Amino acid sequence: MEFTINQIAAMLSGEVRGDGQEKINMLAKIQDAKKGQLAFLSNPKYEQYIYTTQATAVIVKKDFVPRKEVSSSLILVDDPYSSFTALLEEYHKMVSFQKTGIEQPSYVGEGTTIGQNIYRGAFSYIGSGVRIGDNVKIHPHAYIGDNAVIGNDTIIHPGVKIYADTRIGNNCVIHAGTVIGSDGFGFAPQENGTYKTIPQLGNVIIEDNVSIGANTVIDCATMFGDATLIRQGVKLDNLIQIAHNVEIGKNTVIAAQAGISGSTKIGENCIFAGQVGIAGHLVIANNTGIGAQAGIPKSITEEGQRLIGYPAIDLKEYFRSYAVFKRLPDLNNRLRDLEKKVAGQDLPAGA
Amino acid sequence: MEFTINQIAAMLSGEVRGDGQEKINMLAKIQDAKKGQLAFLSNPKYEQYIYTTQATAVIVKKDFVPRKEVSSSLILVDDPYSSFTALLEEYHKMVSFQKTGIEQPSYVGEGTTIGQNIYRGAFSYIGSGVRIGDNVKIHPHAYIGDNAVIGNDTIIHPGVKIYADTRIGNNCVIHAGTVIGSDGFGFAPQENGTYKTIPQLGNVIIEDNVSIGANTVIDCATMFGDATLIRQGVKLDNLIQIAHNVEIGKNTVIAAQAGISGSTKIGENCIFAGQVGIAGHLVIANNTGIGAQAGIPKSITEEGQRLIGYPAIDLKEYFRSYAVFKRLPDLNNRLRDLEKKVAGQDLPAGA
Amino acid sequence: MEFTINQIAAMLSGEVRGDGQEKINMLAKIQDAKKGQLAFLSNPKYEQYIYTTQATAVIVKKDFVPRKEVSSSLILVDDPYSSFTALLEEYHKMVSFQKTGIEQPSYVGEGTTIGQNIYRGAFSYIGSGVRIGDNVKIHPHAYIGDNAVIGNDTIIHPGVKIYADTRIGNNCVIHAGTVIGSDGFGFAPQENGTYKTIPQLGNVIIEDNVSIGANTVIDCATMFGDATLIRQGVKLDNLIQIAHNVEIGKNTVIAAQAGISGSTKIGENCIFAGQVGIAGHLVIANNTGIGAQAGIPKSITEEGQRLIGYPAIDLKEYFRSYAVFKRLPDLNNRLRDLEKKVAGQDLPAGA
Repeated sequence: MEFTINQIAAMLSGEVRGDGQEKINMLAKIQDAKKGQLAFLSNPKYEQYIYTTQATAVIVKKDFVPRKEVSSSLILVDDPYSSFTALLEEYHKMVSFQKTGIEQPSYVGEGTTIGQNIYRGAFSYIGSGVRIGDNVKIHPHAYIGDNAVIGNDTIIHPGVKIYADTRIGNNCVIHAGTVIGSDGFGFAPQENGTYKTIPQLGNVIIEDNVSIGANTVIDCATMFGDATLIRQGVKLDNLIQIAHNVEIGKNTVIAAQAGISGSTKIGENCIFAGQVGIAGHLVIANNTGIGAQAGIPKSITEEGQRLIGYPAIDLKEYFRSYAVFKRLPDLNNRLRDLEKKVAGQDLPAGA
Repeated sequence: MEFTINQIAAMLSGEVRGDGQEKINMLAKIQDAKKGQLAFLSNPKYEQYIYTTQATAVIVKKDFVPRKEVSSSLILVDDPYSSFTALLEEYHKMVSFQKTGIEQPSYVGEGTTIGQNIYRGAFSYIGSGVRIGDNVKIHPHAYIGDNAVIGNDTIIHPGVKIYADTRIGNNCVIHAGTVIGSDGFGFAPQENGTYKTIPQLGNVIIEDNVSIGANTVIDCATMFGDATLIRQGVKLDNLIQIAHNVEIGKNTVIAAQAGISGSTKIGENCIFAGQVGIAGHLVIANNTGIGAQAGIPKSITEEGQRLIGYPAIDLKEYFRSYAVFKRLPDLNNRLRDLEKKVAGQDLPAGA
Repeated sequence: MEFTINQIAAMLSGEVRGDGQEKINMLAKIQDAKKGQLAFLSNPKYEQYIYTTQATAVIVKKDFVPRKEVSSSLILVDDPYSSFTALLEEYHKMVSFQKTGIEQPSYVGEGTTIGQNIYRGAFSYIGSGVRIGDNVKIHPHAYIGDNAVIGNDTIIHPGVKIYADTRIGNNCVIHAGTVIGSDGFGFAPQENGTYKTIPQLGNVIIEDNVSIGANTVIDCATMFGDATLIRQGVKLDNLIQIAHNVEIGKNTVIAAQAGISGSTKIGENCIFAGQVGIAGHLVIANNTGIGAQAGIPKSITEEGQRLIGYPAIDLKEYFRSYAVFKRLPDLNNRLRDLEKKVAGQDLPAGA
């Protein structure tokens, strides 16, 4: 991808000082930028770099007046930082959706329909009866089971495994190695000590604008017609476990290696830190914040709490208790001293 | 798959009221069921739904007497719930083993023998000298290394990676993305601060009736002739770590994200909750129950304990101690008050 | 692979007693060894086995004098244990690098250069503009994104996913299912409760002699020109999370299921046990040892500490405090008793 300085200035409603015909093929930080690259200057403490940068162009504030000679072309805008951020986003989107066409060998089953402007990487597998929207990118080694449905503008990274009957919305991103729709962990104990498998016949539904990291697992629901449900706008990090029949509420964010046990319903706009564990069959209120490695064995009914520890309690209380925990041997000694003292005062009885 | 009501009644040793020639293609809950589907009525509090359901047929108790008109056909059995469960299991088995034949491209090395009634998905890879039993289902993107052995009726889901020389029994299920036989984590520290790799030359043996979830990892044993050993009937959830030379006893169940360190031997019929961690070179007694996120640094010799915390202690003791932990700042204040009081009584000395 | 006893003796600078032309195709423990296999005798308490072993040859100490008849040939060396270990290493290396050539179908994009003595497994995918060194082994289902660089003698196991622009050094081993270069978990909260994706445009750089286990994830850095950095000699186990912009110092070893949050810089020669969690934007000093399941919310500035707990404190202090924690209900009772006693002595006031 290559743009002229003029084209970029037009996207940003900016003004060009210098040769607008020069070409830009990359964004970079002002201190690192090389020929062909575009940087920005927002924080005045980086001003020194604009006099030495090799950037072909620099985005600057409209009222910027150089104190020395600048060899780069300039693009003058109202807010260089947000202009640059907008370009980063635009660039990221272009890179993410850049691949199109079909690489061979790839596999598509019968009765499958696929939209416009698709990418299907080599060794990707799409089963039978699948429906895939427009602008979907299915990277190499991705597996999409029979009768799955995938909305528009969704990106399935390499090696993602999507079991049959899964439904995924629009504008989702699923990173490499993630598994969606594997069997829930359901086994009925038998009298002889063995376990019988409880058939897992439901599916997974992922709504729009959901991002899922790498090597995460989302199990299907147990019963026909039931679904493990990831609501719109949810962001899941890497290596997360979402068990059968879980529901994750709108715009909830969960960090890496957290695990949600079966049939638990998580509210909206929650934030869970890494390695959090939540037991099964609970309801967690909206706006709950859970600190790293905390364990939640009971439902949280009051919204907006900040919790930590196992079992998790209020964050500030936990840290106050932990401050005393660290001095417990000292506490114990003080208690023993007091006991002796009091026993001494209390001569006849003793302890 | 489609059966007549008569066929289903025959499977269940039930009696038909209505048109036994009608066809059923799906099971469903009575409140959700549609035409072509089969539901059941067991709990009397759901009786209302039998008068409104669109199910083509409903399984009911032998002595059920409708109080209003029922439009569905009925299948009369002794125990509708267990009849329905049996059908779910049968259905699940049929779905699981439904795929047969060979999709192309797929890869098979030299000297490999494969049984009857196999499914080999597109992009599946089977190395050289592999032996695979009857009725085995090898889904797309599965990898089976050289000289591996897989028993009958085992299902290898998409993208499972099985290293060379692994042995897997009959009736096993391994979910997507799981890795079996990767190198144990063995490195010998050298004087200059670097580490030398300790060759990992053993394998993994998985006995019969084992289920393994998605994205779990089981490392091979270190030494030739040794094996990391998963005994019959073991059930492992998703994202579990099983290190080199571990042995998991018969019918033990381990929930998601738990980790077992190297050379530890777990007993039979244990149940470990999610995110449990167990140190290396331990022996864990039969019937041990370990609560979520607990850490086990020492062997457990007494059978039947219930443990939690780090280091894990008896569950009830932990919760009693934790109840006091939450009030530690208060305890500390009370102790300080007492110290002052006693010091006051004990005038000359002071604390 | 097959060697004569003479060839092996020559590698070990050892002397042969017996038929040096016999062939060895496997290493084994002396108590298990069969015909065609080579064992060793180092610890005198295993001497009994040398009189019964079926090993074709046994490595023994130079001054070993059999007390009975030995049917195996002998290889006499200075130190049988280290000779055998050297053979194990040599064998492991040969096995690891044994595969060569190209299996079909496999995919290579345009402008990609690949060195000598390569293995490219079936269904492996190498994008465009990739540079791969000599003696690299790319197993089936591995994915290597556009413009990635891989050094010499590196092994990429089945199903590894390496995103575009990743750089991997020489002599690295990456186990099955590991993902390198997935997007960092960066989302900017918006006023309406939704999140905007922060573009992740950096890459991952892995230096020489790094080993990475199975199903681990390493995210790319956020900004152009920045990298998540794994320094030389680092050893990472299975199912580890390394977030965006993390740096792991030289020769640091991290056990399974540990997680390092974004932008944290880990020192050299650290050892982290399993399931450790480290918060974001921290600096961890060299030679830090962190116990299993510990959580680190603050930077560690003093080198050489041993830490455990959440938040982690000195290991010995933690265990001293935990010893009292287990008796907290008793402590509480003792405090209550004292309070009563003191209140009794102190008659008029009361507590």
